Amino acid sequence: MAGYFDTVAAISTPPGKGGVALIRMSGSEANKIAERVFITASGKPYSEIKPRVQTYGFITDLAEPKASEGNSQAEKTPEGTASPEERERIDDVLLTRFPAPNSYTGEDVVEICCHGGILVTRCVLEALIRAGARAAEAGEFTRRAFISGKLSLTEAEAIGTLLDAGSREQIRISAEPARRRLEERIAKIRGELVGIMSSVYARIDYPDEDLGDYSDGELLSALLSVADDLKSLAATYRTGRAITEGIRAVIVGKPNVGKSSLYNLLVGEDAAIVTSVAGTTRDVLERSVPLGRVMLRLCDTAGIRGGKGIDAVEEIGIRKSRELMAKCELLFAVFDNSEDFDGADAELISEISRLECAKIALINKSDLKAKFDRSNLADIFERVIEVSALDEAETVRSLVAAAEDMFTDGSIKAGLDPILSSARQHGAICAAADALSEAIAALRAGFMQDAVSGLVEAAIGYIGELDGREVGEEIVSDIFSKFCVGK
Amino acid sequence: MAGYFDTVAAISTPPGKGGVALIRMSGSEANKIAERVFITASGKPYSEIKPRVQTYGFITDLAEPKASEGNSQAEKTPEGTASPEERERIDDVLLTRFPAPNSYTGEDVVEICCHGGILVTRCVLEALIRAGARAAEAGEFTRRAFISGKLSLTEAEAIGTLLDAGSREQIRISAEPARRRLEERIAKIRGELVGIMSSVYARIDYPDEDLGDYSDGELLSALLSVADDLKSLAATYRTGRAITEGIRAVIVGKPNVGKSSLYNLLVGEDAAIVTSVAGTTRDVLERSVPLGRVMLRLCDTAGIRGGKGIDAVEEIGIRKSRELMAKCELLFAVFDNSEDFDGADAELISEISRLECAKIALINKSDLKAKFDRSNLADIFERVIEVSALDEAETVRSLVAAAEDMFTDGSIKAGLDPILSSARQHGAICAAADALSEAIAALRAGFMQDAVSGLVEAAIGYIGELDGREVGEEIVSDIFSKFCVGK
Repeated sequence: MAGYFDTVAAISTPPGKGGVALIRMSGSEANKIAERVFITASGKPYSEIKPRVQTYGFITDLAEPKASEGNSQAEKTPEGTASPEERERIDDVLLTRFPAPNSYTGEDVVEICCHGGILVTRCVLEALIRAGARAAEAGEFTRRAFISGKLSLTEAEAIGTLLDAGSREQIRISAEPARRRLEERIAKIRGELVGIMSSVYARIDYPDEDLGDYSDGELLSALLSVADDLKSLAATYRTGRAITEGIRAVIVGKPNVGKSSLYNLLVGEDAAIVTSVAGTTRDVLERSVPLGRVMLRLCDTAGIRGGKGIDAVEEIGIRKSRELMAKCELLFAVFDNSEDFDGADAELISEISRLECAKIALINKSDLKAKFDRSNLADIFERVIEVSALDEAETVRSLVAAAEDMFTDGSIKAGLDPILSSARQHGAICAAADALSEAIAALRAGFMQDAVSGLVEAAIGYIGELDGREVGEEIVSDIFSKFCVGK
Repeated sequence: MAGYFDTVAAISTPPGKGGVALIRMSGSEANKIAERVFITASGKPYSEIKPRVQTYGFITDLAEPKASEGNSQAEKTPEGTASPEERERIDDVLLTRFPAPNSYTGEDVVEICCHGGILVTRCVLEALIRAGARAAEAGEFTRRAFISGKLSLTEAEAIGTLLDAGSREQIRISAEPARRRLEERIAKIRGELVGIMSSVYARIDYPDEDLGDYSDGELLSALLSVADDLKSLAATYRTGRAITEGIRAVIVGKPNVGKSSLYNLLVGEDAAIVTSVAGTTRDVLERSVPLGRVMLRLCDTAGIRGGKGIDAVEEIGIRKSRELMAKCELLFAVFDNSEDFDGADAELISEISRLECAKIALINKSDLKAKFDRSNLADIFERVIEVSALDEAETVRSLVAAAEDMFTDGSIKAGLDPILSSARQHGAICAAADALSEAIAALRAGFMQDAVSGLVEAAIGYIGELDGREVGEEIVSDIFSKFCVGK
């Protein structure tokens, strides 16, 4: 990351060929650079382009005078020697100026909408770079928005979630109203703590002023109220995590009980929003599958069996499956309604009973005559769900209801309620809550308000980490490195 | 292609994840549909949004009232029962209105710049479709621009070339100034022919008016002048074709003479603008490689040898290579300067001498002591170029100069001069020129102006096919089917 105050440019639309592409430039020199390469079609000077109005014109190339001889390198004139009107026009575009501070980054921003060819888009970007812009790094626009105070760190994280969203619920949790509400809720909590500290310090620093009394009782009650707020906000992470980070899930069962059809039902229901989680360090067979509000990180573990593997390859498969079972958070065990309960079933159930994850038993072929004895399942599984190929919609409804009930809080509405959605956010809120608990304990133990205030300040510090007011460079870099270039 | 006058919407930016995405909607209902789903952040009513100004606000979902219970399908209320303010907000966006006719398509256009996540972009598009838009077909926006007279067919073709451009010269030939100049040149030729016909018809239709005389000599001279214009325009296709459609080229030579280093030099010079031509019916090993102004469609034919193949696999390889040689337009034959001319060289040269393509001999390792006898090459090859690994830049310069000289007209400048760039355009101009030649011949043979005029009208008809004034539905569909959705 170079200096924050130079001007950066990047292609902000996805890579590849499209009808149009958008190139964004941000920084104090953005207009100066744009003026060097852009000419309006109307002949109006650049300075008269109105803010936020899409203006038609041409991007020219500083290195290419108009009458150049093909692209023979030897005949290029020195850069900048021709006026824009004399230079070669790369593309006809729509240019929009967003003057600071009313832009995405809070800096002067210029956006150029050009034709969406791969090379032509790159040539337009290169023209900006040749005219003085620097190629932006991943997430640099959003990082600048954070630095200039346009976005809090939680809002920036939500934008990251929105860009990666694979379910409607992830969009809800990261859309503008939800982003703003979480930010407001955090600001409110922080404001209350700051207010408490002012009350305490004012009386310590200005004992001669007639500020009235701030009793330990008042302080305690104020701290307890904020502690409650923090606790209820921390509790939202259970739901937020199920929605955003997802629940590690596996499907197990004997061969031919219907594991694959269940897998296909979950994965294939709406194939377009099933995204294979490529480019991560996780198992490549893991799929992100939305099940109602809950995002499953579903592993394809067709190989789990009762441990009767014979050859070495099968041994490895079974070991792998056992590892997945051991670290999963939700296990779907599939049984066949039309078969008798046998030794292999007993073995599988005994193995499952030793796991600590959430467990759902699925009785497949429930439309056939029941032979399978369910009494063995009651103690082990939190839910037993009947599955029939005749009514897949009903199966999905039951699974959605079970997963939402097990992993989310139905009273919390994504898009309406502030919800914590990353381990980082949850960690900061918990640390703040812990500091406040200590402060409350200290006050109850008879410590002076002066002594207690250090702990309250620590809590304010943790909240500052959450929204980014007080946060280390390393955390900021980590967050923005997950963004794509151009955002 | 459904009715032209309904309202269509599509994602116009490339598919995939980016920082932002652009969704375009065009048609008479575009604003009505946008108003149903968009609310301004300022609270200003939709009708007060100024044309071409990017306005911040929210896209809402007609099917999702704000307080909905997760994404459980069962609880959705009937579409459109909630006001926009009561509905769930999918994304915060920038919306721009381009009122007809000052838009890309000439119709009312609304563009929405949303966050560039794959799912969120799709949800915004779906919100528009749910509110009454139809998903646009490939090229439908540009087709509408053509139908409403915003673009001629040659301009639309140029935009297709621009989007696919893999070389700066392809961008030059298809950028706005070039597109417009070709269109103007065609319009001028057509105008002249129409003017000639008016002069002829006026005197035939209104013999009693005192319109003066329009002698056969005047008519002949006018027709000859237009015929010259057509001929010189038709001649630009040689250059245009080399730039856009490309020249089929192969590299041949004995093993270990340096074929692969030449291939790498040509392909790898600027790896980013080398595009493998995927999705075509051509050989998958063909690569589009710009060599100066000329685009090579270079085939990797490492296997061509003197015909001493021993096993069946090599036989097939050699047959394939011979097929490529037979249909290529430019052949690079590589020889080793440090080796004596031998029987295999003689065999290769004899084979090459029977081909009708352009031929360039490359004497590799020219920095080593010369043993190779060049006298055998002079009659066969149009160019003999020295190649040294010590100065690759010089090799490329020589190749660029040779290719440009052999396949393009140096006096024609892409971006400045009108250039025909597709077989369709060239065919129409040639047909017009032929019709005009017949007209001239008829006039010279003493036919009446009345009889000659039918042939001139045929020429006007062919020119109408070129710019799209008079063109069959099939040709139009063929042209726009090559565009991507969203353009």
